[in-house]
Amino acid sequence: MTQRNVINASVTPKGSLETLSQREVQQLSEVGSGSTHKLFRQCALAILNTGTRIDNAKTILEAYEDFEVRILQQDRGVRLELFNAPADAFVDGEMIASTREMLFSALRDIVYTESELSSARIDLSTSQGITDYVFHLLRNARTLRPGIEPNMVVCWGGHSISTEEYKYSKRVGHELGLRSLDVCTGCGPGVMKGPMKGATIAHAKQRRVGSRYLGLTEPGIIAAEAPNPIVNELVILPDIEKRLEAFVRVGHGIIIFPGGVGTAEEFLYLLGILLHPANREVPFPVILTGPSDAADYLQQLHDFVGATLGEEAQKRYQIVFNDPTEVARQMTEGLREVRRFRRERNDAFHFNWLLKIEEGFQRPFDPTHEAMASLPLRRDLPPHELAANLRRAFSGIVAGNVKDKGIRRIEQYGRYEIHGDTAIMQPLDKLLQAFVEQHRMKLPGGVPYTPCYRVVS
Amino acid sequence: MTQRNVINASVTPKGSLETLSQREVQQLSEVGSGSTHKLFRQCALAILNTGTRIDNAKTILEAYEDFEVRILQQDRGVRLELFNAPADAFVDGEMIASTREMLFSALRDIVYTESELSSARIDLSTSQGITDYVFHLLRNARTLRPGIEPNMVVCWGGHSISTEEYKYSKRVGHELGLRSLDVCTGCGPGVMKGPMKGATIAHAKQRRVGSRYLGLTEPGIIAAEAPNPIVNELVILPDIEKRLEAFVRVGHGIIIFPGGVGTAEEFLYLLGILLHPANREVPFPVILTGPSDAADYLQQLHDFVGATLGEEAQKRYQIVFNDPTEVARQMTEGLREVRRFRRERNDAFHFNWLLKIEEGFQRPFDPTHEAMASLPLRRDLPPHELAANLRRAFSGIVAGNVKDKGIRRIEQYGRYEIHGDTAIMQPLDKLLQAFVEQHRMKLPGGVPYTPCYRVVS
Amino acid sequence: MTQRNVINASVTPKGSLETLSQREVQQLSEVGSGSTHKLFRQCALAILNTGTRIDNAKTILEAYEDFEVRILQQDRGVRLELFNAPADAFVDGEMIASTREMLFSALRDIVYTESELSSARIDLSTSQGITDYVFHLLRNARTLRPGIEPNMVVCWGGHSISTEEYKYSKRVGHELGLRSLDVCTGCGPGVMKGPMKGATIAHAKQRRVGSRYLGLTEPGIIAAEAPNPIVNELVILPDIEKRLEAFVRVGHGIIIFPGGVGTAEEFLYLLGILLHPANREVPFPVILTGPSDAADYLQQLHDFVGATLGEEAQKRYQIVFNDPTEVARQMTEGLREVRRFRRERNDAFHFNWLLKIEEGFQRPFDPTHEAMASLPLRRDLPPHELAANLRRAFSGIVAGNVKDKGIRRIEQYGRYEIHGDTAIMQPLDKLLQAFVEQHRMKLPGGVPYTPCYRVVS
Amino acid sequence: MTQRNVINASVTPKGSLETLSQREVQQLSEVGSGSTHKLFRQCALAILNTGTRIDNAKTILEAYEDFEVRILQQDRGVRLELFNAPADAFVDGEMIASTREMLFSALRDIVYTESELSSARIDLSTSQGITDYVFHLLRNARTLRPGIEPNMVVCWGGHSISTEEYKYSKRVGHELGLRSLDVCTGCGPGVMKGPMKGATIAHAKQRRVGSRYLGLTEPGIIAAEAPNPIVNELVILPDIEKRLEAFVRVGHGIIIFPGGVGTAEEFLYLLGILLHPANREVPFPVILTGPSDAADYLQQLHDFVGATLGEEAQKRYQIVFNDPTEVARQMTEGLREVRRFRRERNDAFHFNWLLKIEEGFQRPFDPTHEAMASLPLRRDLPPHELAANLRRAFSGIVAGNVKDKGIRRIEQYGRYEIHGDTAIMQPLDKLLQAFVEQHRMKLPGGVPYTPCYRVVS
Repeated sequence: MTQRNVINASVTPKGSLETLSQREVQQLSEVGSGSTHKLFRQCALAILNTGTRIDNAKTILEAYEDFEVRILQQDRGVRLELFNAPADAFVDGEMIASTREMLFSALRDIVYTESELSSARIDLSTSQGITDYVFHLLRNARTLRPGIEPNMVVCWGGHSISTEEYKYSKRVGHELGLRSLDVCTGCGPGVMKGPMKGATIAHAKQRRVGSRYLGLTEPGIIAAEAPNPIVNELVILPDIEKRLEAFVRVGHGIIIFPGGVGTAEEFLYLLGILLHPANREVPFPVILTGPSDAADYLQQLHDFVGATLGEEAQKRYQIVFNDPTEVARQMTEGLREVRRFRRERNDAFHFNWLLKIEEGFQRPFDPTHEAMASLPLRRDLPPHELAANLRRAFSGIVAGNVKDKGIRRIEQYGRYEIHGDTAIMQPLDKLLQAFVEQHRMKLPGGVPYTPCYRVVS
Repeated sequence: MTQRNVINASVTPKGSLETLSQREVQQLSEVGSGSTHKLFRQCALAILNTGTRIDNAKTILEAYEDFEVRILQQDRGVRLELFNAPADAFVDGEMIASTREMLFSALRDIVYTESELSSARIDLSTSQGITDYVFHLLRNARTLRPGIEPNMVVCWGGHSISTEEYKYSKRVGHELGLRSLDVCTGCGPGVMKGPMKGATIAHAKQRRVGSRYLGLTEPGIIAAEAPNPIVNELVILPDIEKRLEAFVRVGHGIIIFPGGVGTAEEFLYLLGILLHPANREVPFPVILTGPSDAADYLQQLHDFVGATLGEEAQKRYQIVFNDPTEVARQMTEGLREVRRFRRERNDAFHFNWLLKIEEGFQRPFDPTHEAMASLPLRRDLPPHELAANLRRAFSGIVAGNVKDKGIRRIEQYGRYEIHGDTAIMQPLDKLLQAFVEQHRMKLPGGVPYTPCYRVVS
Repeated sequence: MTQRNVINASVTPKGSLETLSQREVQQLSEVGSGSTHKLFRQCALAILNTGTRIDNAKTILEAYEDFEVRILQQDRGVRLELFNAPADAFVDGEMIASTREMLFSALRDIVYTESELSSARIDLSTSQGITDYVFHLLRNARTLRPGIEPNMVVCWGGHSISTEEYKYSKRVGHELGLRSLDVCTGCGPGVMKGPMKGATIAHAKQRRVGSRYLGLTEPGIIAAEAPNPIVNELVILPDIEKRLEAFVRVGHGIIIFPGGVGTAEEFLYLLGILLHPANREVPFPVILTGPSDAADYLQQLHDFVGATLGEEAQKRYQIVFNDPTEVARQMTEGLREVRRFRRERNDAFHFNWLLKIEEGFQRPFDPTHEAMASLPLRRDLPPHELAANLRRAFSGIVAGNVKDKGIRRIEQYGRYEIHGDTAIMQPLDKLLQAFVEQHRMKLPGGVPYTPCYRVVS
Repeated sequence: MTQRNVINASVTPKGSLETLSQREVQQLSEVGSGSTHKLFRQCALAILNTGTRIDNAKTILEAYEDFEVRILQQDRGVRLELFNAPADAFVDGEMIASTREMLFSALRDIVYTESELSSARIDLSTSQGITDYVFHLLRNARTLRPGIEPNMVVCWGGHSISTEEYKYSKRVGHELGLRSLDVCTGCGPGVMKGPMKGATIAHAKQRRVGSRYLGLTEPGIIAAEAPNPIVNELVILPDIEKRLEAFVRVGHGIIIFPGGVGTAEEFLYLLGILLHPANREVPFPVILTGPSDAADYLQQLHDFVGATLGEEAQKRYQIVFNDPTEVARQMTEGLREVRRFRRERNDAFHFNWLLKIEEGFQRPFDPTHEAMASLPLRRDLPPHELAANLRRAFSGIVAGNVKDKGIRRIEQYGRYEIHGDTAIMQPLDKLLQAFVEQHRMKLPGGVPYTPCYRVVS
């Protein structure tokens, strides 16, 4: 067993406005029993690991088995008592400010998510109700800031990428920052950190205060992708679908950097929405980019989209090879269009109400072998439906690769079978092969990759 | 009919953080039908009358019958469209900033109050649930600021007082302000304005920024006591009992200035709580004060408390005759004690959780003739129960004097009869007589006062 | 002798940026010998009397004969040690923040004025050099804020006026404040305080932060007109002429309220400048105003200007009788013109470089009997020269009334004789008579007024 | 000739407080003639080259021969008109905020330095007078902030170092930043940038606002070491001696990273001062540090100090090999001592008045062959005098290596001869040899190094 440095500490929110009622404190304090407390403990541990390189949730949870957190009410507000907390979160015995802030963000979101669910105002059975729920969660986290012109750029891509790709994402972030744009990511390492770091330096050069480094995460992923310490707004959405919806409702444009099958899943989610007839006229700048080294990857992804969803789909995004300045310029131009459109339609700058997201995208997909095998992957489907199904296929592969439940299913029933038109199956197979060759199919522990699926055309 | 200057205008929240979901906008927009919209229209009209001297809700509502307000979503957030709004709320065509701010505070509170009521987390059937509700409303209004040492002084007293008394309240506010204390009132004119005005000047002298002038009101009273424009935090609680609970939970000390039977009601509400055995050790500075002219009034009130609730009750407050500096000094000292106590007990500075408020104080009292006649006003009751009943008696008289329903009851069934021990009935009668003689029983329209009650011992 | 409460205290500048070199500290510390220290002690004493009603410099200086102040260097900056300081400047033993701020403003200005005088960059022998000097003094005091649109309204008028006039000046200040205008005065009581107080309340209503209440004074007058505590920028100019130049260079418009012969002197100073041919096209809003009670006074002043300087002079200002809103509206309109003009000519918003001020206005006038007797007061002079001479005449009368040197001269040589054309002498005599009748010729100690002059036509 | 992108632009200070008098504008505008204008043009050009990699002043000046800058007065303040300015200073046509800020800092310092020199208050003939001058320059630049506890860490070292050394300096800066320390450097690239960049990220993690990245430079060096864009306070001192004095008076501790002969010169300057008997008790944390690769270098420098100035000298600093955290910890501890000492002695936190700097260190050393040859380098000198002379020897070598005048002298008269005790000459020779071997003797254009001196023992 590895040596871990741990520390006991008591922290209070500095300058934060979080207050809790006695009932809320009690609910969070029920150590052992309450699921709320368990959830908070798990998120807290992930946040305290910020900055370390372990990206395996299980490993972290096991390494700090005796970690505990207690919530107390006191004269000046809420206080957290931490026991056996990772020492890396502290400098000379004092907790790093960003870590402390994130702990209280987690507290805020977990308390609110719970109580909001019990509210009659939320009707999760309808698409509109789910969108309202996402809105309420973001509003409670003070993420929605009316009056600010569209400038929130979402960066998607792998959390485990090459040094070249990481540096490139920093350079893009720097160019975004020079143009006074804010950055939103999934809040872990890799592409989720690079653009924020580049933007921080650029914002300092531009003497910009109040810059936003927004991290959107969810309890299932926070341990594996601990928020990087530059994130200065952390929001924990309750699940992956809410998180994806938050990205596209709160972001004004999206940049897609190289990544693995998870990034492909996100890309298809986005294309599925943008290809929906109702969204035809909604401007939404999307840029696919990477350094010279990643040119092949970008081309393969682009070709795959062309081969499966067609040219119309390719028109919804731009590819920029190895040119951070050009990426930032095109994004700036795209955002101008977003502003013009929202003003014209009187849509809020801070929340993309007009974007139609079908219920299929809002509900979790459970990748049973049966569900995977019966995914309709046919050229005669409307492109947005085909995109939705392809996204489900990728989602299943991610589960088969790294998620507990998925791995067990593969162990029990063998590989997933994915069926469909040859015109789709061939490009899909080719793309997945390329991912494997480029080492973009990462498994925990560095085990060589064995596909969890079989493409059947 | 009087000439009214009206104006049409479109206002947006400047620097405010209010955002609404589409559903909330819709709910508020249902002109004519929805009670939420009606409530908002009524509060908006009261706020737009800020600064005028009309204190009759009915008169205002009638004078601006064709006033209308519409809520719109737009790119930069929420926008209000006002039609036939009182011109006094504008300077050269632009709405006064404090008025605009209060409009959006009203919007915030009405939306939240509604949706919170529908939430399963709120259980209004228990005392604890009601307190939680008050907490949630205040938290949502960002009134609870953790980390600030106890410095919120509530000022109670008449909204229609003599010039001498008004000036005195300003001088007290000035001394409070010099000591960097904040002021909370019921947010109308008179004593609700004087201390805030005095404090504003003193805070300017002390170069204090971020001073708080907190106004707590409720829909039933806001029209009659329109918020004075110095109020920079307006919270609209749903009813009178929630408002009173908010005062004692959020205020750290209370100053009681001369007023009418309503002020007496508030004073008895406070004494009823402080005399509860559970609150015996809770420090809560209460100061009864007024200018030389009001010395008789103060003495009569003090004597009444002595005669009915006894010496123990008199010990829970101090009387200061005509000495603003002394009032401020004693309050400062009392607040030090509050701070010490809360720190010791780990109670929040921003919300007085430890104060026990019995359900009887949290529920409305409906002053039917039967209820009034059967109020137990006996010396053998525990003082805090007697105080509660005396508070109900005063509450009934207020209703009989000025509230629609109460007036109609008196017209139909004659005066209320109040029964009780002679030792209580005599002082009560004497006090009420004094109020009449001192013209503290105000009726709308300046009609000479005819008592709506008869004291029977 | 009256009982005086005194206090010893040690104060440091909170949040202020004043730093001193060791040499500067030494220079200020030479108690007894150095004139710099004497000057500072005198100003400090005046500032500590802020808020008291004594307006007689001599009385104050005598009352606090044993007052002393020492300047010390310490780790966190400069510290002042005060001995036997007036207790009114403190609240519960702590100095009022505005008083503390002003003490350090005085320190700053006195140190800078001294050292600047010794600088070769300042050439006081030329008109341009004097203007540069005024500019440097104001810049060092951080009074010149580039980038702010013209909104600084100077209010001139008596420091000892009727309650009616004081209230009126408050109402005008309130209307100015509602229109987000800043206020500059001579920083004492009366008209120097009223508009600031009114504006403070209005700025609070408009949620305006960073409002400026600029007080311009000079060592010779600060003791008699102690800065009122609302002043949040205090600048001590070295003498009366620099102070007057500062008013017209830094103010964007001027309102003249009722006052005595000193106010008349200021009014003529202003007219003398505005009537100069070089300033013909320079817009400069000037409004003469007062309450109903002061209508006679305003009319007399207006008639006097008409009779002596002619219609052209009357066109350089407007009279508004008893209408604060109208005053504020006209001022706002005038300021728009100022902005347009400065933008067109590329003149700074923060300093009126284009205004021509002749050397005659920049140099002190020494009112000997000979100088007074030989003032040319002839209708055939150009109006701006006649205005300059009339200003000198008023200046002499002020000296003869209240200044040490002037009083002694009158005692020794009898009344001043003022000669001139009958067409000027008659209106002058009439105006001065009116001042006497309206009790606008105030003498220290309330002694009945005996004229110190004789008008000879 | 290389292709240069140039741009014409007009810039105004955003949020800055710089104002100029008409005379000052005129003085700066005299293109061609005035030396003030020439100086400003040169500094402006250097600042506009921020971020480029050219570190040769002459090259820059020649590359942008047709660059011009004009100063204009306008309504909202000062405006600069730039012609043929380097395009790299702009993003999409708009000047980067930090560059704009620095341009106006340069303007401020050049105007003030000139006018201050003409002031009688400055007596440059005395040591105290020179210190006062430095104080005034820093105060005018608002660099002296009273009330802040000692936390300004000066980082000295080469501007042209290895990647390893650069990365190390970033890591040290990161650790300093985590401990909320500010950074001051000579404001160019290399060691002057690394610590600031590291601190920027760490300050973001610690949510620290108002962090200071202070750059102290002088006109002779600014072109070669253009301010890096993180510098958010730029001060241009008039010459190298004032700049060195500014470093030790305003910095609370100093970290010395690897560098060349210039860094050695600075180190000896510092030791010379700290070894002065009058400074024996003045605490001043000095840390010599570098990455593993630089261990030899550090050891050589340390040995040289031991061999020439003795153990006493070695006790005035600490060596830390390759341990950023340890560096930051020791510095934090050292600063605590500084605070304690200054508080005890009532010395300002913001300016180290108590440090004795002999006139010899305040006056330029002109390295003629004669002066170099007659430098007394004997063991029997008091260590602080020997340090002063060694510093002069290094200063001469720097001049002979890279400065115009020095190079010409070497061309004309051959190498400098440096005489002294063998016990000093041998270590000196050895150290210089090591510098050559480690390529720390950089010449413009990468020419191989030929020594400009000869050590004669």
